Amino acid sequence: MDKKGLLIVVSGPSGAGKGTICKNLLKSNKQIKISVSATTRDPRKGEVEGENYYFISKEQFEDMIKQDALLEYASVYDNYYGTPKKYVLENLENGNDVLLEIDIAGALQVKEKFADGVFIFILPPSLEELKKRIVTRGTESQKDIEKRYGCAIEEIEQVIKYDYAIFNDDLQRATKDVEAIITAEKCRVSRIHKNIKSIF
Amino acid sequence: MDKKGLLIVVSGPSGAGKGTICKNLLKSNKQIKISVSATTRDPRKGEVEGENYYFISKEQFEDMIKQDALLEYASVYDNYYGTPKKYVLENLENGNDVLLEIDIAGALQVKEKFADGVFIFILPPSLEELKKRIVTRGTESQKDIEKRYGCAIEEIEQVIKYDYAIFNDDLQRATKDVEAIITAEKCRVSRIHKNIKSIF
Repeated sequence: MDKKGLLIVVSGPSGAGKGTICKNLLKSNKQIKISVSATTRDPRKGEVEGENYYFISKEQFEDMIKQDALLEYASVYDNYYGTPKKYVLENLENGNDVLLEIDIAGALQVKEKFADGVFIFILPPSLEELKKRIVTRGTESQKDIEKRYGCAIEEIEQVIKYDYAIFNDDLQRATKDVEAIITAEKCRVSRIHKNIKSIF
Repeated sequence: MDKKGLLIVVSGPSGAGKGTICKNLLKSNKQIKISVSATTRDPRKGEVEGENYYFISKEQFEDMIKQDALLEYASVYDNYYGTPKKYVLENLENGNDVLLEIDIAGALQVKEKFADGVFIFILPPSLEELKKRIVTRGTESQKDIEKRYGCAIEEIEQVIKYDYAIFNDDLQRATKDVEAIITAEKCRVSRIHKNIKSIF
């Protein structure tokens, strides 16, 4: 049996709620490995090193770029964000499913390298709700809020490049949708054809 | 919102257990409409007209062929089996999901007309188990059993033309897999892109 893990990329604009969905998903699916991103931005209140992000310096990040040690990276709002390659590749190879919760620019980079990943776009229920959520987060200046909102609208146009889209109007249902997508993808003939051939 | 229903085609060789899975699926998903096939074969013990099949004469069946009133049909073991078109098309148009439990020859005909249907292949856990199930059914002569078994093996090669394959080694899990596939397919960007565009 081919036991390669599934690469699950959950992405979407700021304020769509991808973080909450992923947290929820991991709670009830302990076998899924979460890839922790590296970033050069400052930690927000309550964020934990190695759990929310690896907080590293600009110099360290640029070293990783040079060493081709990142699966994807992007510069967003003047900070680097990226996915260390090693953890993801090792886990997939060992048959573990790996979850990447990353922004859209990063997700599209990953898609170029991992066409057989599962690309899921989290959508806010509406534009009004999106703006409310960005404001409610309360960690951003008014200027940052406007910038995020403007970017979010542009980003939603990228949904067409994804496999799946989920409206996050109900956290429980949205999480169940992600779970269903993972289950379904594991039944895709294109993924399991070799296993079928080996049995019959 | 585009409210067209999903066409779900569940198919597989005799003895794989597609019938039991479909029955199970419909029990907990009352909103799914089952398409009842027409056939010219004799009813088996316990089969109910209009529920298991519409049992019609060869002449009636050939009239439907002439009138292009069948979505697919096939002649299997010297009997016709087919899917009346009207019920399926009307329900899809009204936003209802429609389940077709049909044989492989029929499913592949439907796929040519409905490329956006969801094509699910039910696999037995093993060849040994498949043979056991065909024998246990007990409604067939030895010659029919051998014929069915031989066909089943050839049919399994067609799995490559399907979107999904499910090993039926555990009825509950297999049913849940079908449910997950339906949920996932309703999140496919290619299906809901128009809805997304209309909201944003």
